[in-house]
Amino acid sequence: MSITDEISTSSLLERIKPFLEGYHPVEIKDILENEHPENIAELMNRLNSAQNAEIFHALPHPLNFQVFECLEIEAQVSMLKKLNWRETVKLLEELSSDDRVDLIHKLPEQTVESLLPLMAQAEREEVRKLLQYGENTAGAIMTTEYAAIPSNFSVSESLLHLRKIAPNSETILYLYVVDHERKLIGTLSLKDLVLSKPYEIISDIMTKDIVTVDVLIDQEEVVKQFAKFDLFALPVVDSDHKLVGIITHDDILDVAVEEQTEDVHRLGALEPVEAPYLKAKFFQLAKNRGLWLLFLFFGVSFTGTALRHFEATMEHAMSLVYFLPLIVSTGGNSGSQSVTLITRALAVGDVTMKDFFRVAWRESAIGISLGLFLGIIGWVFAYFWGTPFMVCSAVGIALLGVVIAGCMIGAILPMLLKSIGLDPAIMSSPLVASIVDVIGIVIYFNVASLLL
Amino acid sequence: MSITDEISTSSLLERIKPFLEGYHPVEIKDILENEHPENIAELMNRLNSAQNAEIFHALPHPLNFQVFECLEIEAQVSMLKKLNWRETVKLLEELSSDDRVDLIHKLPEQTVESLLPLMAQAEREEVRKLLQYGENTAGAIMTTEYAAIPSNFSVSESLLHLRKIAPNSETILYLYVVDHERKLIGTLSLKDLVLSKPYEIISDIMTKDIVTVDVLIDQEEVVKQFAKFDLFALPVVDSDHKLVGIITHDDILDVAVEEQTEDVHRLGALEPVEAPYLKAKFFQLAKNRGLWLLFLFFGVSFTGTALRHFEATMEHAMSLVYFLPLIVSTGGNSGSQSVTLITRALAVGDVTMKDFFRVAWRESAIGISLGLFLGIIGWVFAYFWGTPFMVCSAVGIALLGVVIAGCMIGAILPMLLKSIGLDPAIMSSPLVASIVDVIGIVIYFNVASLLL
Repeated sequence: MSITDEISTSSLLERIKPFLEGYHPVEIKDILENEHPENIAELMNRLNSAQNAEIFHALPHPLNFQVFECLEIEAQVSMLKKLNWRETVKLLEELSSDDRVDLIHKLPEQTVESLLPLMAQAEREEVRKLLQYGENTAGAIMTTEYAAIPSNFSVSESLLHLRKIAPNSETILYLYVVDHERKLIGTLSLKDLVLSKPYEIISDIMTKDIVTVDVLIDQEEVVKQFAKFDLFALPVVDSDHKLVGIITHDDILDVAVEEQTEDVHRLGALEPVEAPYLKAKFFQLAKNRGLWLLFLFFGVSFTGTALRHFEATMEHAMSLVYFLPLIVSTGGNSGSQSVTLITRALAVGDVTMKDFFRVAWRESAIGISLGLFLGIIGWVFAYFWGTPFMVCSAVGIALLGVVIAGCMIGAILPMLLKSIGLDPAIMSSPLVASIVDVIGIVIYFNVASLLL
Repeated sequence: MSITDEISTSSLLERIKPFLEGYHPVEIKDILENEHPENIAELMNRLNSAQNAEIFHALPHPLNFQVFECLEIEAQVSMLKKLNWRETVKLLEELSSDDRVDLIHKLPEQTVESLLPLMAQAEREEVRKLLQYGENTAGAIMTTEYAAIPSNFSVSESLLHLRKIAPNSETILYLYVVDHERKLIGTLSLKDLVLSKPYEIISDIMTKDIVTVDVLIDQEEVVKQFAKFDLFALPVVDSDHKLVGIITHDDILDVAVEEQTEDVHRLGALEPVEAPYLKAKFFQLAKNRGLWLLFLFFGVSFTGTALRHFEATMEHAMSLVYFLPLIVSTGGNSGSQSVTLITRALAVGDVTMKDFFRVAWRESAIGISLGLFLGIIGWVFAYFWGTPFMVCSAVGIALLGVVIAGCMIGAILPMLLKSIGLDPAIMSSPLVASIVDVIGIVIYFNVASLLL
């Protein structure tokens, strides 16, 4: 949110606050009715569900419905609880089919079961149809309110047809040409329709080479298709290439951000938190972090076992211990750099499995050069710190070793995970770091005991 | 890139390879001419610039130009070097104004200087105009090929007007209504235009409440506006609200991905690498990583200084050393979790500066609960490992301390950075980790020397 929005929202908040206690629909309406729905939503995202219901009731129709559409999903859910059945049903009916199903996904089972019978036939079937698709599939993010035209229509017939179906279409900027079996055979932009002669036949002016996705494909894949082909909307087809819906660019940007948040969280070693940070349940947050911390704790605990073996060496030269954290964390840092680069490259498709050896080769080359660089600096650093010559050498060689290990492990593990069909993002930086920690200690003290 | 694309591209590669040696334009043309430009580009991204030039010359016009548009910018630059001036100029002229300027940004100064004079007047002025905007501003990503209509036109006049300007517009799905001074006063979707009566006047049917961005605003801000308002295209205006260009949704998805890669890289403690991993120059990659590693190296080197102070304590109980890496990295891990959560929340706008205290409070609460959790586990773990009681307690208390420190520092530092106008993403997980490392050691041994 930009600074200016920030200010406008806050000032709006100030003006509205006094009227949220007690019953002041008129005042609320006067303050808000000329605001952009998005801005009212921003405001409501900061208020509690009771206050939101107040505002919702005060606002004229359809503004209140537009505002509801802009609310964060968590806010929508908690506000619904404050509305009566009739209002809830009306709301659900007016939402676009994809938003509706997102919302219903978040509602408790029994609520949905009791709501559905109250909804209009058409919407009810809609919901049932969309609900069968898994939460992160193309089917779940698509809308069924697209504009389809028969291939044998003329341009003028199509324009008339459009006037009819426009109100129930999320967009008519692109038209989907279907045959008598509702199979998708082409697309036509409203632009081309408008620019062609009234008597031309759709099948002659439509584009035949079309990009489609299967209704069951993962949403991350859909984002890549959008990025690759610069699409405005992507038609979704079932196994017999029948048109079942479209996914529009505006939903994709949201999906892209959501997917990336997931990857970033995994990379930071916590289970992805879906809700906005301040809205997330405290326990949820603690759980998503605690489990990983515990897992990593036991991962690193092997360093203790490793250290025990070298008690003699340490007592022999206490100064070895001073460099322990330095070596361990330098290895960890080079590891998290590699894992960051590679998981990201895998996520955006810059790197695929067939590049495995090129990546491995590249990272080892990088590892060697960075290792030499830091090894030498480490040696000099230790030396001027007044450390015994042998210990300096142990430090230098260990640094070379851990940096190479860090780069290799950080690059190879995510690719191995991907090759066995797991999400490479679960190989988080801290996880790589702790693996490298253990290796680092083993290298360090082995070198030391050899030299001393 | 999906698996299927992967396969298709590879098979295409096999078929084309034999003809890339020597001169076989006809065979190349036969193989590729019916492929989707995107797929040909995928293929070319794997070949060297000489081979790409071969293909470019073999393909019929305009297919070869469409393919060029789909190439990664690095591939475009290196291929241009293989073309003669005439071809280069023709290419630049046919690119859409925003792609053109992206490309020119990447070309060496003198090349641009010698190219510009050869270009057609209009395009030349275009380039000069767009070149003045900084690389990550709205001005640099906008296109100047938008469809503007005067507010006093009728619907039918506008439709005629559209037929004229359509060829030179990147999109006519949205029309921008300007007054006689070219100030933006409204927008109109092609949909509404088509659905309204021929004699209606634009100013009566246009939408007056419009979202615009200033031409100098940062592209990250533009992405947020798109995400917030679900836009198809965003008009860009100068300081007197004159329309200077539009930014379309397809460019935004690319910007969003690019911006997020930057943040992810920073979070992983390396200078963002713009080029795809395998295309990035080796030295560039090494530099972007080496400098950070060096910086972190000196950050952590304080742990050595800290440890020196506690030599006596360590010799008193060697077993303290066994738990050193465990405590240090547990602190680091909780730190990187917090910094990941908060920088991401700041990036997507879930958290703003005014939430500072709520965030600080939340993280301290999380820190305390996670700290207690791991502290107890650590105590038990150490105890069953046969560690002296006092050392177990030192471990437990130290764990509690470092986890709290990690959460607080990881959450507060990025916000402080943002508050002084820096990018919070530069506060990378490893940086936080190394700060926490030092604190961890100090806590650990102080507790130990108190207890022992």
